[in-house]
Amino acid sequence: MHHPQAGSRQSVAQSAAEILARLRVRRARVHCITNTVAQNFTANALLAAGCLPSMTVSAEEVGYFVSGAQGLLVNLGTFDKERRDAITIAIEATRSNALPWVLDPVFVDRAPTRAAFARELIAQRPTVIRLNHAEFSTLAGRKPLPDAVAAYARTGQTVIGLSGESDLVSDGERMVSIANGHPLMARVTAMGCAGSALIVACLAMEPDAFIATVAALLIINIAGELAAEKPAGPGSFAASIIDALYNLDGPTLIDRAKVR
Amino acid sequence: MHHPQAGSRQSVAQSAAEILARLRVRRARVHCITNTVAQNFTANALLAAGCLPSMTVSAEEVGYFVSGAQGLLVNLGTFDKERRDAITIAIEATRSNALPWVLDPVFVDRAPTRAAFARELIAQRPTVIRLNHAEFSTLAGRKPLPDAVAAYARTGQTVIGLSGESDLVSDGERMVSIANGHPLMARVTAMGCAGSALIVACLAMEPDAFIATVAALLIINIAGELAAEKPAGPGSFAASIIDALYNLDGPTLIDRAKVR
Amino acid sequence: MHHPQAGSRQSVAQSAAEILARLRVRRARVHCITNTVAQNFTANALLAAGCLPSMTVSAEEVGYFVSGAQGLLVNLGTFDKERRDAITIAIEATRSNALPWVLDPVFVDRAPTRAAFARELIAQRPTVIRLNHAEFSTLAGRKPLPDAVAAYARTGQTVIGLSGESDLVSDGERMVSIANGHPLMARVTAMGCAGSALIVACLAMEPDAFIATVAALLIINIAGELAAEKPAGPGSFAASIIDALYNLDGPTLIDRAKVR
Repeated sequence: MHHPQAGSRQSVAQSAAEILARLRVRRARVHCITNTVAQNFTANALLAAGCLPSMTVSAEEVGYFVSGAQGLLVNLGTFDKERRDAITIAIEATRSNALPWVLDPVFVDRAPTRAAFARELIAQRPTVIRLNHAEFSTLAGRKPLPDAVAAYARTGQTVIGLSGESDLVSDGERMVSIANGHPLMARVTAMGCAGSALIVACLAMEPDAFIATVAALLIINIAGELAAEKPAGPGSFAASIIDALYNLDGPTLIDRAKVR
Repeated sequence: MHHPQAGSRQSVAQSAAEILARLRVRRARVHCITNTVAQNFTANALLAAGCLPSMTVSAEEVGYFVSGAQGLLVNLGTFDKERRDAITIAIEATRSNALPWVLDPVFVDRAPTRAAFARELIAQRPTVIRLNHAEFSTLAGRKPLPDAVAAYARTGQTVIGLSGESDLVSDGERMVSIANGHPLMARVTAMGCAGSALIVACLAMEPDAFIATVAALLIINIAGELAAEKPAGPGSFAASIIDALYNLDGPTLIDRAKVR
Repeated sequence: MHHPQAGSRQSVAQSAAEILARLRVRRARVHCITNTVAQNFTANALLAAGCLPSMTVSAEEVGYFVSGAQGLLVNLGTFDKERRDAITIAIEATRSNALPWVLDPVFVDRAPTRAAFARELIAQRPTVIRLNHAEFSTLAGRKPLPDAVAAYARTGQTVIGLSGESDLVSDGERMVSIANGHPLMARVTAMGCAGSALIVACLAMEPDAFIATVAALLIINIAGELAAEKPAGPGSFAASIIDALYNLDGPTLIDRAKVR
C-alpha cells in the first residue's frame, strides 16, 4: 500500500476509502474494555462499520477474547479494580499476539488518580492515544498546539489523535488536520469513545497507525456530517450517525474529506 | 389451552398470538442478569412488549427481586465474581418459587472458562437455552443440525432455541423452524439478548416451554421484519424494532408467521 | 430571584423558564452514581439539556469528580459494594463542597435490604428525593396522599418529587401538582432516572430546591408531551424526548405548564 505524505489530501482520503472497503468485508473482531455508559453505543458503531465487538472485563476470560480479536480498545471511563486487572491482562495479550491497541484516557483532567493510571498505561506504548484538549493538556503538561502534539507523539513513540473543532493526527513526523464533523457530535455521550473504537477497527485493516487513525476519524466525522442533515436533535442524531456509518461509501468519504 | 403438534403452522402462530395478548395485559415482572452492553436495549424491549424489567446483580438483593418476578434471564455477556454469585442465588430463587429461567450462553465459543461455567449452569436445568450456531457447536461438541439440536434438548431435558438464518426450536420431541426475521437484526447489539428476555416473558404467560419459545422468537423476528420496512440503517432500526414490539398485534403475527 | 408562592402557576412556570435558560449557557457538571441500565440515556438527557455528565463509581476517583461538579445524583438501581463505597465518598464530597444531591430510591419496594440502605441515605439529608408511589409507600409506611407527602418532606427536611399520573412536589410547606407528561414515558427505561438527573441540573442553577425540582419535572414532562406528537412507539419516542429536551424553549415551557 502506498503511504501518502502528510498533507496529500487526495491520497489520505483515498487510503481511508480503501480501509473502509476492507472494514465492510473482513468483519474484524474488536475487543473493548470501555465504560458502561459507552458500551452500547460503541458496540453499535462497530457493528455498523462491519466489525464484531466484544466487551467483557472479566479477568479470567479477557485474555482469551483479546487473543481471538484483531485489536483492543482501553477506555478509562471507569477504572475500578476489576477493570485495572482486565486492562493489564488484555495489554499483555496484545503483546503476545502483536495486536494494536488504542488508549482513550477519558476525563484524566478530572482526577489525578486517573491521570496517574493513564501515565502507567502510556508507558506501555499504546499504538494510538485518542484524547481531547483538556485530556492532552493534563497528560502532556502543555497546551495541545501542533508542535506539542507532534513532540508528545514522538517521545511516546505513538500516534496521537486529538479531538477538537478540527481533529489533529500526528505520529511525530507526519501531521494532518481534519476539519470534518458536526457540533451535535459533542451532544451525544460516547461519541469520542466510539471514535476510538473505530481507530482500533482501522488498525486491524492497516499497519500504518497514522493512516489508520486518520481514516477512522474521517469516517466518524463524515458520518456525523451526513447524520446531521436531517435530525431534529441529539436523540435522533445518535441513531442517524449509526445509520450513516452503515451506509457510508468510499466515494462520499473522498468527496467530503477536509484534510490538510 | 390446546398444544398444537409441531408443524401445525396455523396453531403455533395462533398460540403465539394468544401469548402476545396476555403479555399486553399481565405486565409480567422479568428479572434479567445480563451484561451491561445489553441492559438498556433489553429493558426497552421488555417494556415495549408489556413487561416490567428489573436488572440488579447485587447478591444481597437479587433473591428478593427474582422471588417477586415471574421469570429469570441468565445471560453470560460477562461473568465476573459478582455476577456468578448473583446467578447462583437467582437460580436458587427460581427453584424455591417454581419459576422458569432462560440461559443465554453468549460467546461461549470465545473463552473455555466461559464455556465451562455455561456447562455448570446447564447442569442446573434451565427451562430454555437460547444460543447461536457457534455457541451450540461449542457446548454440544457437534454441528447444530436438526437431529443434534433435538438430541441435545432431550438429553438436557430443556428446550433449545437456536438462532440462525432460520431459527430452530426443539424440546427433544417437537421441532419447528421459523423463517422470519431480517439481516439488520444482526447489526444491532443485544438483539439476541432481548430475544432471550422475551422468551422469559412468554414463559411467564405459557407453561409449555416449547410453545412459549416459539412465540417469543416469532414476536421478535416479525417485529424485526416490520421495523425493517422503513429504516435507513441499524441505528434507526434499533428504535423501530422497539416500536414494532409495542405495536405488534395478533392478526399481524398470524399473518406473517413462517413456521414449519 | 423572586420565589413564587405555591399555586402561582404563572410564576412557577416563569421560574422554570429562567432555570432552563441558565441551563443552556452554564454547562453544569453533574455527577451521577446511577445504575448501568440508565447510564447512557441519563447522560444523553443531561447533554441535551446543556449539562456535562460524568458517571464513574470508582471509590478512588469519585470524590474528585463530585468536588469538581455542581451536583450529585445517587440512584439505587443497583447497590453492590463498589457503589455503596462510592456513594459514601460522594455524599461526603457534597458536604465539603456545599453541593446539592438528589436521591432516587429505585425499586425499594422490591427488596428490604435496598429499602434499609435508602433509609440510611435519607438520614443524611438529600436535597431532594424523587420517587414513585410504590417507593414512597415503602419508605414512608403510608400512601402518597398530599398530606403524607408534605409531612414526609417536613420531617426529613427535604423536598419530595413524587412521580405519578400527576407529579407532586413538596418541601413540607409549599406544594404543587404538575399534570404534564405522557404515558409513553413509562414505557422507556431510565425515564425517571433521567428526571432525577435533571433535578440535580436545576439545583445547580437555583438555590431554592422546591423551585428547582418543579422546574426539572416540568422540563422533562413537557419534553415528553412534545416528543409524543410524532413517534410510532417507545423506541422512537426515546430519541424524540432527547431531541425535545434539546429544543425546548422558555415560551413553550410557560405555555404548556399545567401547574396547580
